Amino acid sequence: MAAKDLFHNAVKQGLLKDDWVITADPLKIKIEGVKLEVDLAAEKIIAAQKAERKIAVEIKSFLNTSAITDFHIALGQFLNYRLALQMSESDRTLYLAVPVDTFESFFQEKFTQEAVKFYQVKLLIYDPTEEVIIEWKN
Amino acid sequence: MAAKDLFHNAVKQGLLKDDWVITADPLKIKIEGVKLEVDLAAEKIIAAQKAERKIAVEIKSFLNTSAITDFHIALGQFLNYRLALQMSESDRTLYLAVPVDTFESFFQEKFTQEAVKFYQVKLLIYDPTEEVIIEWKN
Repeated sequence: MAAKDLFHNAVKQGLLKDDWVITADPLKIKIEGVKLEVDLAAEKIIAAQKAERKIAVEIKSFLNTSAITDFHIALGQFLNYRLALQMSESDRTLYLAVPVDTFESFFQEKFTQEAVKFYQVKLLIYDPTEEVIIEWKN
Repeated sequence: MAAKDLFHNAVKQGLLKDDWVITADPLKIKIEGVKLEVDLAAEKIIAAQKAERKIAVEIKSFLNTSAITDFHIALGQFLNYRLALQMSESDRTLYLAVPVDTFESFFQEKFTQEAVKFYQVKLLIYDPTEEVIIEWKN
């Protein structure tokens, strides 16, 4: 399996372990002539709220040698997808899935923290080896 | 000259023809452990205002087959660079340089127009063959 697919699969397995139902892989959005693809869509019934939670997840591996280059791409995708969801399916919340080692290093930098806060990027921290979701950061 | 450098040079020549002084190529910004590079910095004395205008320009060629992929990267770079400039040099205005044929096609799509408006992306439209700046869109 290619490295990128391993990370994709790790997030998918992590969501399944937490009782999410994967409803699209990938989630395709079309706005007139522009087609976008978010990695995953998932849903879960929250019993306490008697409501269904709908999410979309863009999965990043941060495998390139330059974390900032990976972050440019991740931020652009996240903000374009969030806007596209607002235009097409506004009850679905978008998350950016980030491997735990990248979260504990590059995402602790002052600039990265400012960018995540300023652009209100919701993060899903995952362990690519254990295939589990570690934390949701809203 | 590589295709990417041709586009870079076209914007640079276009700015020089309009009496801009190129002050950095590239413009390096460092915020603690994170290093960013914007393609160009330029300055110009605006006589009527007796003031100096300072800009930074990120130059995109949109040469890939997928315009939306290029746009994800462009948007991520633009928004990260704008934030980094706000943190380090807030009197410098950032522009995204887009070739005129891409502006007249992909940038007329409903989604692209929404994204440019929503994220307040300032555009500089250039002709890569004639090496001139066609329009500034604020």
